[in-house]
Amino acid sequence: MSLRDLINKELSKWMLAPGPESDVVISSRVRLARNITGIPFPNRATPEQAKQVYNQVQKALEDRTAFNLKLVDLSRLSEIERTAMMEKHLISPMHAEGGQYKGVAFSEDEVISVMINEEDHIRAQVLYPGFQVEEAYRVVNQLDNFLESKLDFAFSEKYGYLTACPTNVGTGMRASVMVHLPGLNLANRIQQMLQGVSKLGLTVRGVFGEGTEAQGNLYQISNQVTLGRTEEEIIDNLNRVTEKIIENERYWRQQLLKERKDDLTDRIMRSYGLLMYAHKMSSEEAVRLLSDVRLGIDLGIIKNVEPNVFSELIVLTRPGYLQKIENKTLKPEERDIRRAALIRKRLRLTQS
Amino acid sequence: MSLRDLINKELSKWMLAPGPESDVVISSRVRLARNITGIPFPNRATPEQAKQVYNQVQKALEDRTAFNLKLVDLSRLSEIERTAMMEKHLISPMHAEGGQYKGVAFSEDEVISVMINEEDHIRAQVLYPGFQVEEAYRVVNQLDNFLESKLDFAFSEKYGYLTACPTNVGTGMRASVMVHLPGLNLANRIQQMLQGVSKLGLTVRGVFGEGTEAQGNLYQISNQVTLGRTEEEIIDNLNRVTEKIIENERYWRQQLLKERKDDLTDRIMRSYGLLMYAHKMSSEEAVRLLSDVRLGIDLGIIKNVEPNVFSELIVLTRPGYLQKIENKTLKPEERDIRRAALIRKRLRLTQS
Repeated sequence: MSLRDLINKELSKWMLAPGPESDVVISSRVRLARNITGIPFPNRATPEQAKQVYNQVQKALEDRTAFNLKLVDLSRLSEIERTAMMEKHLISPMHAEGGQYKGVAFSEDEVISVMINEEDHIRAQVLYPGFQVEEAYRVVNQLDNFLESKLDFAFSEKYGYLTACPTNVGTGMRASVMVHLPGLNLANRIQQMLQGVSKLGLTVRGVFGEGTEAQGNLYQISNQVTLGRTEEEIIDNLNRVTEKIIENERYWRQQLLKERKDDLTDRIMRSYGLLMYAHKMSSEEAVRLLSDVRLGIDLGIIKNVEPNVFSELIVLTRPGYLQKIENKTLKPEERDIRRAALIRKRLRLTQS
Repeated sequence: MSLRDLINKELSKWMLAPGPESDVVISSRVRLARNITGIPFPNRATPEQAKQVYNQVQKALEDRTAFNLKLVDLSRLSEIERTAMMEKHLISPMHAEGGQYKGVAFSEDEVISVMINEEDHIRAQVLYPGFQVEEAYRVVNQLDNFLESKLDFAFSEKYGYLTACPTNVGTGMRASVMVHLPGLNLANRIQQMLQGVSKLGLTVRGVFGEGTEAQGNLYQISNQVTLGRTEEEIIDNLNRVTEKIIENERYWRQQLLKERKDDLTDRIMRSYGLLMYAHKMSSEEAVRLLSDVRLGIDLGIIKNVEPNVFSELIVLTRPGYLQKIENKTLKPEERDIRRAALIRKRLRLTQS
């Protein structure tokens, strides 16, 4: 199989299409937590009860008039396959650990996914490329209405939707954007932005890496509060804050280009050179260098390379994916060699 | 002018042809110090006496039956031109400072050069690519005989040829090889080799950089003693030691290839990637990365690149040369940008 075919086959369709404002916003996601009345939450449920949840959801999804989702039983997948699913954000890290009566149903383009027996009975998510929070909310809302027409969700007049963890009670909704902020980082404005965002009821965390260190300048921004606010208020708030961040990030990128063009160009081109030639590469380094290259593409410093290589390669070069592509378990040092080879090959694909 | 034409024009012809054992020995040089009887050494000579020396040598060189050398009056050259001459080893750093009645005569291929009124009245050198100490000695000897047939050299029965600095008295000869020793360096064997060489009456110094830190793994090995030994003994000794170094260096390169191939490949390819893409580069970094690339070419890790890029680019990217090519004075940061651009262009010339 050619690398192009492999990428088309392995990656979610939505990853291959650029979304709006994708120079800053990589993806937008909205997910809902729902539970079925009268059955304990998954961490308290007996195998029999978990099976009951699985079967009820499976039955609901058999009606394909509104949504055509394919259900996969996680216990039938290998660890490598589950890890790869996690790496493309189709399932959560917790779900990737697998177990009995755990499943995931997803649409062909993988925009929609429904996890069964994760922390809650149902975790439904819609994930779009670029800045499309409202669109994601619109679709997840339809999905929620559809599921609610088939299943009896635990709901309290006082608290709203009941969830395994109190932080999700209420709307049960988490809306988020994944943003690429190299400009703010290089201009040392990231802490200021993080503080501002926190004050507005949103949480920011690095997508990769521990603590405040966000590898690859990738941050996920999501609503902190699910209780006492309507879904529309949550979406509106995230939208407004994200618009502000886009504006700020673009401003600082232009400032860098104006004031430190040679330094910036040097940094970006060196990262590109390393990705084009290195023989070994850790996933941490890959994310860091790919972030520079993406910035270079967005600023017109690197030409003839599709912006997509960034999100594609960040997923493809994760440990699970690499092993899925190679179809075997690889030692870390082997992975570093395969990762570097895959990156070299992918970057050369787009060179004119 | 194309880059290829520029290189052919700017660099000494001998640099463009590979010599024997050039995977380790970059060049071989023999130089003689000679002075004319009855005229004080240059640092003591009056302008009138310096002029006398200049004129006598000029007259001697007019006989082109044996050697066809072109004489250039250094006072007619710009500082940039003199620096560039120094950077390709045609004249010494001291001579590059210029001054009245200082000159250099050289053959068309620049293998032979004769400096007039440097530290001694005459410094004649023969410089060959690769390991050709004997050949260089043979030619410099002919040149010496030719000059001696025209000029009256200061010579003492007891001490031999008299020179401005006592360290040159005797044969007045300094024979040297420039060797590239990345294998010994990476295997941490360089100190051991340096000590061994010193015990054999030879001096080792880094070609670039201060102290024991040899940038680009380039070392010059030369005879320490000029007194009490015949020319043939000096040449034989240097030859034998160099053969041993070649053998050692090759042994350690193969060991590295056997034991640390992935690390070595990664290091070499990363250096190559940086040279191919960086936007700014200091001459120190350039020499260091070019050394890795040369090793990669010699070990077959980098293909489709001529080994020559190493010695060519090390000369072309020196500050004086860069300014000569651009035909103007450049600030250090401008030089770093031009240097990186020249390297990128040159490396792409040889890619198939």
